[in-house]
Amino acid sequence: MGDRHMGVTGSLEPCADQDYPDCGVRHLLDRLGDRWTVLVLAELSAGTRRFRELQRALPGISQRMLTLTVRRLERDGFVERTVYPSVPAQVTYELTARGGSLTRQVRHLVDWSAEHKDDLTASRREYDARRRNA
Amino acid sequence: MGDRHMGVTGSLEPCADQDYPDCGVRHLLDRLGDRWTVLVLAELSAGTRRFRELQRALPGISQRMLTLTVRRLERDGFVERTVYPSVPAQVTYELTARGGSLTRQVRHLVDWSAEHKDDLTASRREYDARRRNA
Repeated sequence: MGDRHMGVTGSLEPCADQDYPDCGVRHLLDRLGDRWTVLVLAELSAGTRRFRELQRALPGISQRMLTLTVRRLERDGFVERTVYPSVPAQVTYELTARGGSLTRQVRHLVDWSAEHKDDLTASRREYDARRRNA
Repeated sequence: MGDRHMGVTGSLEPCADQDYPDCGVRHLLDRLGDRWTVLVLAELSAGTRRFRELQRALPGISQRMLTLTVRRLERDGFVERTVYPSVPAQVTYELTARGGSLTRQVRHLVDWSAEHKDDLTASRREYDARRRNA
């Protein structure tokens, strides 16, 4: 049983037994599962942005949450933060090559999702109707 | 500004303005971001499973959480649940064609993650060292 579990998760979850925060795909899915990360990646895929520009492009994000989101992306090497020694200091954010690569991966999932959106909605409606009548 | 936001999220977040639970990619990323969904998909990609078999394959999952996870996957049309009229009733779960398609998508992300795992770890280590010294 232990072996089979290793086998299955070995392909889809390369490090299920290690520390949660460093756990490859788990870590990545956690990031993508948070509301803002994907939106920040999307905005940066259109070009370099200053902090204020990001904030304006993402209505509803708090300053604290945006700071946290870009800091995590920077820590993972997806985003590069540049500080220009002006007064006041100007800070810009842009995707690294790795960040661009991740964004393209996410886009595949988004395309898949768009393609299947109506089917999913139909399935959910059917399922709910069946349960109401059960 | 509103237009630009629509433009960017139009590509990566097809329905950011609609109800959260039905919101295409957001909904999907939420599912994938939860600890168990990806593991259940992985286990079912190896073949049909009974409830007990799934439970044994996913050490640490509670009965309630597994019930919830497979129910959501069933509701989205990713998993088909079959009840055999035996005593006690036997229930099996298997991936639908759509579930198989999603699992292949997830696998791409997992492969990407495995490929970049060491780079990410290195980036995080560097970032933390820089902040310690700042």
